[in-house]
This record gives sequence, C-alpha cells and structure tokens, in this order.
Amino acid sequence: MVDLITKRFDCVLFDLGNTLIAQENPGTPYEDLKVQVLPGVQQLLGELHGKVKLGIVSNTKTITAAEIQAKLATVGLDKYFQSIIASAEFGTHKPDPAPIVAAIEQSQCAAARTLYVGDIETDKQAAVAAGAHFAYAGPNLYESVRQYILHSDSAFVRAVNTRLTFSQEHFDSVRKEFDGLAKPVGSLGKLETIAPQIAGITHSHTPTVDPAAIALFGADHGIAADDSVTPWPQAITGMMLEVMGDNKAAVSVLADVADAYVQIINVGAIADSKSANVRNERVASGTADIRNSDAMSDAVVHAALEVGAQTAERLIAGGSRCLVTGEVGIANTTPSAALIAHFTQSTAEQVTGRGSGIDDQTYARKVDIVANLITKTKNEKDPIKTLAQIGGIEIAALTGYILRAASLQVPVVLDGVITLAAATVAQAINPKVNQFLFAGHSSSEPGSRIAITHLQLQPILELELRLGEGTGALLAIPIIRSACQALSRMARISDLL
Amino acid sequence: MVDLITKRFDCVLFDLGNTLIAQENPGTPYEDLKVQVLPGVQQLLGELHGKVKLGIVSNTKTITAAEIQAKLATVGLDKYFQSIIASAEFGTHKPDPAPIVAAIEQSQCAAARTLYVGDIETDKQAAVAAGAHFAYAGPNLYESVRQYILHSDSAFVRAVNTRLTFSQEHFDSVRKEFDGLAKPVGSLGKLETIAPQIAGITHSHTPTVDPAAIALFGADHGIAADDSVTPWPQAITGMMLEVMGDNKAAVSVLADVADAYVQIINVGAIADSKSANVRNERVASGTADIRNSDAMSDAVVHAALEVGAQTAERLIAGGSRCLVTGEVGIANTTPSAALIAHFTQSTAEQVTGRGSGIDDQTYARKVDIVANLITKTKNEKDPIKTLAQIGGIEIAALTGYILRAASLQVPVVLDGVITLAAATVAQAINPKVNQFLFAGHSSSEPGSRIAITHLQLQPILELELRLGEGTGALLAIPIIRSACQALSRMARISDLL
Repeated sequence: MVDLITKRFDCVLFDLGNTLIAQENPGTPYEDLKVQVLPGVQQLLGELHGKVKLGIVSNTKTITAAEIQAKLATVGLDKYFQSIIASAEFGTHKPDPAPIVAAIEQSQCAAARTLYVGDIETDKQAAVAAGAHFAYAGPNLYESVRQYILHSDSAFVRAVNTRLTFSQEHFDSVRKEFDGLAKPVGSLGKLETIAPQIAGITHSHTPTVDPAAIALFGADHGIAADDSVTPWPQAITGMMLEVMGDNKAAVSVLADVADAYVQIINVGAIADSKSANVRNERVASGTADIRNSDAMSDAVVHAALEVGAQTAERLIAGGSRCLVTGEVGIANTTPSAALIAHFTQSTAEQVTGRGSGIDDQTYARKVDIVANLITKTKNEKDPIKTLAQIGGIEIAALTGYILRAASLQVPVVLDGVITLAAATVAQAINPKVNQFLFAGHSSSEPGSRIAITHLQLQPILELELRLGEGTGALLAIPIIRSACQALSRMARISDLL
Repeated sequence: MVDLITKRFDCVLFDLGNTLIAQENPGTPYEDLKVQVLPGVQQLLGELHGKVKLGIVSNTKTITAAEIQAKLATVGLDKYFQSIIASAEFGTHKPDPAPIVAAIEQSQCAAARTLYVGDIETDKQAAVAAGAHFAYAGPNLYESVRQYILHSDSAFVRAVNTRLTFSQEHFDSVRKEFDGLAKPVGSLGKLETIAPQIAGITHSHTPTVDPAAIALFGADHGIAADDSVTPWPQAITGMMLEVMGDNKAAVSVLADVADAYVQIINVGAIADSKSANVRNERVASGTADIRNSDAMSDAVVHAALEVGAQTAERLIAGGSRCLVTGEVGIANTTPSAALIAHFTQSTAEQVTGRGSGIDDQTYARKVDIVANLITKTKNEKDPIKTLAQIGGIEIAALTGYILRAASLQVPVVLDGVITLAAATVAQAINPKVNQFLFAGHSSSEPGSRIAITHLQLQPILELELRLGEGTGALLAIPIIRSACQALSRMARISDLL
C-alpha cells in the first residue's frame, strides 16, 4: 500500500482525537489525559514512517503542540511526526483551513499532494478548503486509508470494491459464549443469534450497536402525479422533512427512545429544505414519472448512490457502530414494490400494498402500474440500471448507504418496504451484503415479507407498522442493544462455581 | 368517607413532596420553589378540615416550617394545618420517628389514632415506629386515603375490594388522537392501540409508562426435589437472587436498557439472601412438594399475596407508573403449567413445556405430574385455595402485585408462563383485571400462548425467549414507551395546515 500512497501523496496529516487516539472528554485536565492508540494506527504510521512526511492538525481548546508531543511520547508515537499544529495556540480552528495550510507549509509539501485523515465533517471541510485530499477514519485506521487509496475518491466505489467479509469465527465464538452466561442454554431465544451476528459483522468479540445512528433520506417521485399510487400530494415529502427537522415526526420520537442519532438528508425532494437540521444534498428535483420514462439518468443514480455511501462513511467515522435506515418520499411504495418484484421475481399482485392508505379501485390501478414497471425492466441485468429506470433517489441513496456500511463492517438495520427494496438492489450488487443486515420488523406491506425472505433475514418485530421513516427499525434497536449488553454484562456460570 | 376517618383517627399527618405537592429537585433554592398541588389533595383536605387535626411532617434539608407555611399560602393550602414539622430545623429526619412523634404531641392526639400519609418507605418506617398508622399516597391522594380507610390495613384486601375501572372514554379519545398525528391513519400499527390502552388504564389523556419499575419475586419449590421437572438444584434460586443483587443477571441488564427500576424481593426462597439489594420478605422457606401435599398453608398464601400487593403500593407511591413482573424460582414452570391448565381448562399435554431444558423421558414424567396436579384441583372453585394447593409463593406474590397495580390504575406488563400463571389467578379473582395487563411477549413455553389467549391479550414480542426473570416484559417497555411518546411529542396534522 505504501507505494500507492507515495505515488499520490508526499504528506499525510491526521486529526488526533478519534482518529489516532481515543477521544477524551473535552474538560479532562492535561495531566489526566490518557493516550489510547486506536486500531490500525501503529501499523499505518510504521509503514508510512520515512516514506512520506507525517503531521498532526488537532482542534484543541487549551493544549499545545508540545503537550501533544509529550503525551504521544508516552506511547512511542511522537517519533513519527514532522509537524504538529494545535489550534489552541494557533488561534483558529477547523473548519478554518489555516491550521492545515500551516502544517502543509511546515512539511514543505504541495496541498494537492497532501492527504488529511479525520473523523468529522469539519475535518473534511477544512481539508477541502486547504486544497488537500481527505479520507475519513473508520473503525481501523489502516483499513480506512487502504480502502481510500485503493478505491479512488468515490465512497460508493470504495463500497463496491471492498470484499465483504463476515467473520463466522466471531459469530461462532460469541454464540458459544452465550452458553456460558448465568441462564439456561438458549433461553434468551433470538437474542442469542442477534449478538453473534453483530460479532460476525464487526469482527469483534464484544459486539455493540452504540452509538447508533439513523440516516433518513428524503426524495420525491414523479409518479405521485398519479392519484392511484397515493392519496397524498407530492408537497407532503417536503413538509415531512420540515417536521423531521423540527424533531416532531414519528422517527424523531422513536429515535429518542431508542437513543439513536438522527441525520436527515434531502437527497432529491422537489425543493431544498429550510430546516437547519436537514442536509440539502439534492442530486435532482424528484424522479421523472416512471410510467412514461426512466426515473433518473445514470448521472443522477450514481450521485445518489454516492450521497448514501458518503453518509455511511461520515456517520461511521464519527463513531456510529450501527446504521439504521430511514426514508420519506410520497409515492415511494410503488417503485419499491416494482424493485422488490424485479429482484425477487415476484408478481405485481404479490408485492403491491396499499401504501399510505388507498381504496380497492385505486389499488387495482396501482397493481397495473407495478405490473407495467416489472415488464419494463424484465430483461435488465444491471441492478443500478434497474434502479435508474424504476427506482427512486432516496432508494439509490439507501443502496449506497447499505453497501458502504457493510464494507466498513458496520451492521445495518432495515425498516419497511422502501429500505428493503434498497437492500434487494444492494444484494443484487453484492450477494454477501445480507450477512450485514437486520430486518428490524416486518411491515404490513406485502412486499416486506417477500423481500425479507429473499434476503434470508428474520424480522425482529411484527407490529403491523406501515409508516416507514425508519420507525420499525428504530423500535428494534433496544432489542439488539439488549442482546449485546447481555453478553458483555451478565455473570458467567464459571464465575459462580 | 369523613365519618369513617373520624371513627378511627383524630389526627391525619402528611408528608409534603410527592404526597401533597409535586417534588422539586433537592437543590432548588427556596425562592424558586413552585407549589404544584397534586391530584385529590384539595378534595381530601377540604373534606377533613375541621373534622380531624391536620399536619405536615416533611424531610427538608434547609427549609423551615415557616417557609413551608408561606409557600402553601400561595395556593391557599396553609389554612388547613395545625402543625408543620420541617426536619431541617427539627434536627433529625425520617425514618427517625421523632418528627412524627412531635407532630402528634403538638396536635394533642394519641399515636394509635393518628394516620400518616407518605410516598416512600422511610415514611412508613417512621410512622410505624411512632406507633401511628400509615397509608401510601397514590396517583390521587383522595382515592388513596379512601381505599385505605374502606379496605382495612391489608394492601391485598384494598386490591380486591377496589372496583376496577377501565376508562373506555380515555381509550377512545386517545385512539382518535392518533388519527390526527402527522402520519397516515393507522400506520403506527399496534402502537396505536398500546397507548390508548394505557390511557384507559390510567384515566389519562397523556399516557406514560415512566418511570417504569420491575418487581422480581423469588421463591423455592418443594417439587424441585423431583429431577423430572428441572435439571437444576434448588440452590440455584438463591444463587440467582445474589446474581440479581449484583446487577449481573439478564434481568439486570435488560432493565438498564429499558430504563426500568429493579426491586428484587426474596419472598420465599429456602434461605435469606445476603445481597443488600435483595429485600428479604420471606413468608416461608419454599413450598412443600406439591406431589404429596399442598404447596402452602392459607396463612402463607395470604402473606405472599400481601407482600405482592404491598410491593405494588410502595412502587406506585414512589412514583412508578408502569409495573413490570419478574420472578425466579427453580421448578416454577410446573406449578405455573398446572395453574394455567386449571384456570384455562387445558390438558397437561397442552400446557407443559420443557422449562429450563429437559429431555423427552423426563418431559413425559413432567406431563404426568402436571396431570395429577390438575386432577387434584379439579373441583376447587376458590382461586386462592388453588394457589395454595398447587401454586408457588412468588406466584402468589405476583398475583397480589398484579391486582394491587390494577386497583391503583397502573398498567402491568407480563412476562412468561410464571407471571402469566399469576395473571390467570388474578383474572379468576377479578375478571376485569385483564384490561390492565400487557403481554410483553409470547415465550416458547406452550402455556404462554394458552394463558395469553385466555386473558384476551396480544403479545407485543415473539423472540422465543424462555428465561423468565421479567426479560421478555422488559424488552417490550421501549415499544410501549415509544407508543406513549409518539402521542405526546409528534406534530399534529392540524398544526401543519
């Protein structure tokens, strides 16, 4: 890997907390700071040492570069760095690019041949403004940089080019560990497979879902113009994004109860959202009407896949260890039904439901529309082209999000038919992705059970929900959390004898 | 009611915070203290005024009696009280009886003709030590005192003598309110009946489960001597109570995740528990072997019912608004299966499961044992006598706990077969009790589904658990909480138009 790095970069700079070492609470006094080096850091610095210039640019409140140097010396990391900038003494903080610019100058490199590695979005903003390249830190720093280097600047390309590896060894080991807990063997039922599944996904003997985050992607659909697929006007998508931004949607409340961080992304509504809590990353103003034309162009579908994959990278780099799927988009049950039918080879009747509530007559017309969409994509072998033809922008974003989370060994919790449709696309792109997925619930939409069976998953909950937004997935989080915490906190039989 | 009070008491004294007025945070400065009078207080004081002497005995850190008097004057409550004792100036605090003794002397009453009303156990301890009578405050103070006066000093008698009233009006009103939330009608599925159910139980338009608490009752069973009903030695009950006291059992972990307070009660293990976190309220040292004799005497079954009912009163007086059921007791699936069979008129084959894990041969013997127990109680019409004949001490405590919670309009969340068996007994005592119950889950024990159907409940979860302890019930708490919070926090469609 070092050769690939030196080919592109003369200088690699790092953020400090949550990138090289574990982040301490902001108020911790200097003398109490403990240096805990994160996974992959020693290997990465060891290999890069002497090959490129290395530096640190850290947002600090009171601590100086000399103090950072002294702390790093306690774990033998000080020797690697030619340049250390602590913003406390520098006078300005990221996202201001000045500290990074200064580090680049100190190292006598060109900005275009500098890579900055950090964990939060302000790191990225500062790096891009300084003219440098940027990579997110993940659970293992060596792996994160390796994936960045190997797979270009596109997060979605990094997702699809990464070999998905589920660790059966960790699964089996944790499964067995449950037999040693202070309870009859098998008596925690499904909890005893949920925690091992997380262990297999994360290659960890101490599975956790915390902190958990939900990304909610919103987009509009040209087909909403047809009354038969939904009783709601298209404007409701934008209105619901505002309600979500106000923290007053069902998803907001259920995320609070489930202790999950919420990120709301307007990836393709017909207009930008006004709420400061909604990220406007619109790649188009809704899809075209899929009855008459393709939903979106190749460029749009790839842009949406990229927004989704970048969202997963950003949340995971920020520390999230379980990604929940959410969506909003008036009329999105129709493209979802068609996608599920396409990838599971089902009929329109089997997959079509009543969505947000329609009567018998309009239901029959909806079935017709879905049948036409199925015919339209019958011979299409490329999952991304199918997505462009009959999918939705939020569904494409969810597909990228799911694939990138899996490629970073982070579990994904699916919600209803829309996120399940995205999962069937992801599964067609990489047939191993289902090992990284949980079906939070089985909704009352008929496509739900068909997709869940196709993905070989078992729904955790069956509460007859059909709201979407991520609500059913969020309700499953405390159950997955309970499974993980039972493993880590319960007494062992061996301790009692 | 006043006549009944004056017949027994010359003096009624009250705790202040959480009894007469809402409790403020301990650190709140005097000038910021706001007086919020609790439900039923005005009515009770109004009726008692001039008929008996009234007083307040409050544990205070810095506030004086004169300051309490001044604060009460802001809401017109000051005029009622002949005596106010603030422990800050008195120099000693409850549970020391001295402040209550002083109030009794100031009022020139006899201790034996004094009633003290409070919300926590130290209030009760102080009152009893002062030679006075004690009543717990509940959600409505007038109702709590009325129930105490009408129904003697026994919490269980108070439970069975209270008419259970489910408010269909509150159920219907909250059910309808869900249609006005910012989501398609009915799309939150079962959550849209769970919250109305809590509203009907609590007679409230703002249903809540918080704070939630679980009482876990532990007891031993003589029938554990028979290898066929369990592979575990009887000593495991006591060991598990210690593990629970150490906060390392499955129930401890799941209660933490569900944010429920845990109270562990050794109501009938073969020996006292050592852990400081386990309450020793043993009414007997396990049951007799029900193959040869009755499980317990009339006196023991009533003592256990009373411990359960008192536990519910204590938790509810302390503020709990949802009571979860838990238990531990080696061999307790056998009496539970027999009780469920008796009250649901099922056969031994239908209700008998493999408990904590037994093989085919021993299973057949277990079925025989259950069949004999069914025959033994075939003609018994008194549910409490049936409980004494073939039940368990923890099952009796759970029965009292369930009935007292329901009589105080607090929802109860059931767990597996043991708590379901207690619920079938409670249902036989009062056929309206099922309206106050939730089936947290359906366990993999066959009696579970039979009891749930008999109680006309719908299980919230199906996760193949068969551990007991309250684990399945606790996993359902975040779902019930989500239902309540969706109602209180979501945007209304009317706000958006």
